[in-house]
Amino acid sequence: MNKVARLNEFAGPSAISIMNEEIPNPRPGEVLIKMKTAGLNHVEKMIMYGHFPIKPELSANIGYEGAGVIEQVGIGVDGFKQGDEVCIIPNMPFNKYGVIGNYSVVPSTSIVTKPPKINWQEASSLWMGYGTAYQGLVNAGGLKNNTDQTVLISAASSSVGLPAIQIAKAHGAKVIATSRTLEKEASLKEMGADYVVTTTDEKWKDQVAEITSGKGFDIAFDPITGPFTTQLAEAAGFGATIVSYGTLSMSETALPLFPMLMKALKLTGIDSGHHLLGNPNQFEIARKHIIEHIENGNYKCKIDSTFLLDDVVKAYQRMESGNQIGKIIINIDV
Amino acid sequence: MNKVARLNEFAGPSAISIMNEEIPNPRPGEVLIKMKTAGLNHVEKMIMYGHFPIKPELSANIGYEGAGVIEQVGIGVDGFKQGDEVCIIPNMPFNKYGVIGNYSVVPSTSIVTKPPKINWQEASSLWMGYGTAYQGLVNAGGLKNNTDQTVLISAASSSVGLPAIQIAKAHGAKVIATSRTLEKEASLKEMGADYVVTTTDEKWKDQVAEITSGKGFDIAFDPITGPFTTQLAEAAGFGATIVSYGTLSMSETALPLFPMLMKALKLTGIDSGHHLLGNPNQFEIARKHIIEHIENGNYKCKIDSTFLLDDVVKAYQRMESGNQIGKIIINIDV
Repeated sequence: MNKVARLNEFAGPSAISIMNEEIPNPRPGEVLIKMKTAGLNHVEKMIMYGHFPIKPELSANIGYEGAGVIEQVGIGVDGFKQGDEVCIIPNMPFNKYGVIGNYSVVPSTSIVTKPPKINWQEASSLWMGYGTAYQGLVNAGGLKNNTDQTVLISAASSSVGLPAIQIAKAHGAKVIATSRTLEKEASLKEMGADYVVTTTDEKWKDQVAEITSGKGFDIAFDPITGPFTTQLAEAAGFGATIVSYGTLSMSETALPLFPMLMKALKLTGIDSGHHLLGNPNQFEIARKHIIEHIENGNYKCKIDSTFLLDDVVKAYQRMESGNQIGKIIINIDV
Repeated sequence: MNKVARLNEFAGPSAISIMNEEIPNPRPGEVLIKMKTAGLNHVEKMIMYGHFPIKPELSANIGYEGAGVIEQVGIGVDGFKQGDEVCIIPNMPFNKYGVIGNYSVVPSTSIVTKPPKINWQEASSLWMGYGTAYQGLVNAGGLKNNTDQTVLISAASSSVGLPAIQIAKAHGAKVIATSRTLEKEASLKEMGADYVVTTTDEKWKDQVAEITSGKGFDIAFDPITGPFTTQLAEAAGFGATIVSYGTLSMSETALPLFPMLMKALKLTGIDSGHHLLGNPNQFEIARKHIIEHIENGNYKCKIDSTFLLDDVVKAYQRMESGNQIGKIIINIDV
């Protein structure tokens, strides 16, 4: 039996149902995975509400990150065989694939060998989180080793924000984490944040000024955008880079033109699934860095909560609540 | 006698009058210049309407670029003496200085030796134009020698746009110049543009796609902003940089978030007066490049028109008309 989560309309988590289907066959270049776990990402919320530029045909498989064991390899797949333990990296076309189910088919370019030291929950929480954070901070943001940079990480308790804290700290940066309330302060500091500021009002900009002796931050890594982008530009230091990687605020974003001109700010965006995870050469550099630090214990995947496959709606509702700290995992067969 | 142009209220060129004043004395670190010419820049329009973030006290001296002969050096000024022929580079605080008059006082950090081969009109049209274009394309935009880049230069017939065409061509780039109409096409091609497209409607984006075989441009250098920034983001290639250096449209600028995220665009801004001309080390690199190309004839200052000091209002009205091609010059004593 193959229980599969399917989105029936663009109406959010409540429009997901679990269907009993046949086990699919991998086409050439694809592999069939017997799933162990899946990990949720915010992009799925946008897709589920029809807010993502590319819409899947309904009813649609959902979920793009996971881990499991190869059941069957399609024609023309090299380097993998039945029985291999793998992570599914979310770089496939989101309108053609979805991994939440007992079995899923993905392109062979979307799997990497599971690092042996981590468990199945961690295996589903590694690549979107650390990959996006690495791409955003190092490749797009200009994070360098031990150069006294101040990095501001907003919505820091997310499954990308927490890896970002760790990556910034591993490069010797000073880290300011932002959150809507101080409830998550202890968790954020435990993950390495030097300072936690709340963004419920605009006082956080003064706190950033104080922390940086009036200079402002060097790099911001932000999934919120909307009016928050202008606040970021005001708190930015001369020549700072603001890396956007999401649209959580779902409101119009103005270009903060005057601060950009006066302070020579750089605003840039990343779409991790395509820019890093979809670029074999860049991914290989990031992969080595991430695996090295996971294996030496510097980087630790933070699991917020786990849900059974039958409770997939509750899992996505947890993501919508914004109360999570770290990754939300679906335990499929563990 | 010292005839000086003064702005009496923030109401544009018509609020300028010519006053007879005493010749000022240079304070420590300043020099007194007997002016030969002055060159107009768009930033003065913003200042004259009170749209610039920093406002001078009224009535205010105006104009920030010029050329002349040193009449007197203040205490503590090294490297210059009475009789030296110099260019005034517009890097001084705009609310404290202004150079349109028979005599002007400027900080000694705002003068450089006039290149001997150029005339007094060219001496007032060099530094804001070539400096801003160099800073925007090379330092902020990532223009490299002979790497097959496509550079889009908007409002290309301005006193910054024309130098930008020449700098891009000198680096081996393909240059697309934009203008509101095709009237200026011949002049723009004469200055080196490979293609001229008009931005009266959005068809120009299709032309850019055609010129670049669907790839889009690599660097845009744009003083317009407003809704045009979103059009630029749509016409941009993957990983392109959009360098803004003005606010000509005077309307709200949205951050083109989805194209920025999907194409990993970089948006950045420059304020030439402070970022390049005010940074001695960076300026020295740019200065050498510009002088070398001016002296070997690669770069040619384009003078749109010249006005007498008494006609300063007409000169600024010419700038407001948008009909100019190149620099508008005030002949003060030539």
